[in-house]
Amino acid sequence: MPDMVADKRIVRVDLGSRSYDILIGRDLIAHAGGEMLARLSARKVAIVTDANVAPLYLDALTESLQTDGIETFAMTLAAGEKTKSFDNLTAVTDFILDARIERSDAVIALGGGVIGDLTGFAAAIVRRGVRFIQVPTSLLAQVDSSVGGKTGINARQGKNLVGAFHQPDLVIADTATLDTLSPREFAAGYAEVVKYGLIDQPDFFHWLEKHRADVFSGGIERTEAIARSCQAKAAVVAADERETGARALLNLGHTFGHALERATNYDSARLVHGEGVAIGMVLAHEFSARMNLASPDDAKRVAAHLKAAGLPTSMHDIDGKLPPPDILMDAIGQDKKVKGGKLTFILTRGIGEAFIADDVPPSEVLSFLTEKHPQ
Amino acid sequence: MPDMVADKRIVRVDLGSRSYDILIGRDLIAHAGGEMLARLSARKVAIVTDANVAPLYLDALTESLQTDGIETFAMTLAAGEKTKSFDNLTAVTDFILDARIERSDAVIALGGGVIGDLTGFAAAIVRRGVRFIQVPTSLLAQVDSSVGGKTGINARQGKNLVGAFHQPDLVIADTATLDTLSPREFAAGYAEVVKYGLIDQPDFFHWLEKHRADVFSGGIERTEAIARSCQAKAAVVAADERETGARALLNLGHTFGHALERATNYDSARLVHGEGVAIGMVLAHEFSARMNLASPDDAKRVAAHLKAAGLPTSMHDIDGKLPPPDILMDAIGQDKKVKGGKLTFILTRGIGEAFIADDVPPSEVLSFLTEKHPQ
Repeated sequence: MPDMVADKRIVRVDLGSRSYDILIGRDLIAHAGGEMLARLSARKVAIVTDANVAPLYLDALTESLQTDGIETFAMTLAAGEKTKSFDNLTAVTDFILDARIERSDAVIALGGGVIGDLTGFAAAIVRRGVRFIQVPTSLLAQVDSSVGGKTGINARQGKNLVGAFHQPDLVIADTATLDTLSPREFAAGYAEVVKYGLIDQPDFFHWLEKHRADVFSGGIERTEAIARSCQAKAAVVAADERETGARALLNLGHTFGHALERATNYDSARLVHGEGVAIGMVLAHEFSARMNLASPDDAKRVAAHLKAAGLPTSMHDIDGKLPPPDILMDAIGQDKKVKGGKLTFILTRGIGEAFIADDVPPSEVLSFLTEKHPQ
Repeated sequence: MPDMVADKRIVRVDLGSRSYDILIGRDLIAHAGGEMLARLSARKVAIVTDANVAPLYLDALTESLQTDGIETFAMTLAAGEKTKSFDNLTAVTDFILDARIERSDAVIALGGGVIGDLTGFAAAIVRRGVRFIQVPTSLLAQVDSSVGGKTGINARQGKNLVGAFHQPDLVIADTATLDTLSPREFAAGYAEVVKYGLIDQPDFFHWLEKHRADVFSGGIERTEAIARSCQAKAAVVAADERETGARALLNLGHTFGHALERATNYDSARLVHGEGVAIGMVLAHEFSARMNLASPDDAKRVAAHLKAAGLPTSMHDIDGKLPPPDILMDAIGQDKKVKGGKLTFILTRGIGEAFIADDVPPSEVLSFLTEKHPQ
């Protein structure tokens, strides 16, 4: 086991009075109490986790906090995307209020993106905002959802349509937790790592093409990839906290991805978020090529890299029937990146050259989807 | 009927990029479309109102908006405090999403504080924030809840324990709507008007002692009192938007008041919010006198003024049995103005000299409540 301190990386998210640290390193959960108290003086914490994560890390986290004299409460929810519901939001806020968490105490999300999004939203609205700490245990959560303050739940009308901006006070990314991920789940998180290269860091994409195997096997390259991803996201978030401009670049692959997630009814047996993003990024590159913005070779290169990482890269890779293209379009129209009837997409001029296009004609997207649609 | 333009007062809430106007005047609802379009370019609005208000003003509001080419949707909820529930929050967000309100469209709350708090909270969380317009139709909402961006619902554990800060983009206070209020409801709103004098404007309190009857009968003094109240609140909100400091002064009378509302199970037949605040303000002055901070004569003068306005001024004035003092204390402890076990109260050194005391010993409050408690 590498030395904890030597291995630890700190990425600062610079947001004025709401700035915070992301800690990245092996076995950090065992030091969570000390890391927290070094930054904030909460005396009580309410931990929310899920049934997959609780048996693995809840005891270690609780022990570390209690050793440092912090009173703890814990709630364990079912695992899976369907947990991001209004019913669970009610249940989690009830749990936090019953624990009498005050504004100066803290709520901790221990788990992947689902637990982080739901718990962060509850922390945002209880007493109009209590302190919030992310302890992400999936690669996806470590490089994406735990950073930046977007929280929320799914609605009948679409994914993440209800939520709040609520920055965490601290993120503790224990990279040892990734050792227990299934290869499929690790790959899904890797899609978001690749995304940062595709947005505006072609050299990072080239580095990933070279070091993908090392990132997967867990060497120092894994820590490097996570830290670099967090830095990339932190820079975008610092420039545009509430997604009025450049932050939308982080949605590369997400408009198509969300539509596919909705089309598969958030059934993780068929498609998880990162897989939707992987297919969505390929579609975004293909659509950009179709609009004569980028070379078709870039789309092929992106697809080849994601495929080598074990990710799906086209709608054909999704098990079972997809709804027809016009229903997919409807899901895209319900996505929140819509302005006055025109669609906002993240398109690209090539690898690492993504940009925001806010005047994409829905008719072009529909014919593209019809072309790409299985059957 | 006074000339609409001549009668109109505009109070600006100065919050940088989130600044907005409060319009105060007779028959403004009939001009809502034009007033809105002069400030923001929404093409669609979703109106939320209640069953008491809808028959009176929904048609007039809808007609004004449609005349100006704005598409409208409307939802009518049951009237009353119990409407501020998680179930209705889900229903209202569903309604807004089904209407496909985008971030640049708007949600309108047409009604009193309950409708404003609930609807504003829904507007805050749909797509992580859509535009929001308040059309308050009660005195309480016009002078207090519609200004300042506090939104929320009640939880099992207490009132307003779940919510968000979400500033409106415009407030349209049509003073003609107050003509249809019951005397009891008008008086309840008047308690908040008096509060602004008691916080830091002794001259306003003296003015109210002189002009109370004119404010009630609806002369130019009513408009003056509402505008002055909005100005007072706007100044406090501008100085401390998220209630980290001075804004807490607005809670004068509210910690006791909320506890009494909870103790009567939010049963408006027994106690409405403004009545709880009226009793709470008297208790805050009496408690301050007991702590040798203020003269007992001030408490008597405050009670006399509120009583003359038809408001309850002691726990004895509440119909039915109240829970014992220790249960009231429990409700106070669940109130969100708690820091590290000590109670934060707004106390006073005299009329117009309120201050924040954040180290009030719970034991003192308990013996005070035991003294004051009926039986």
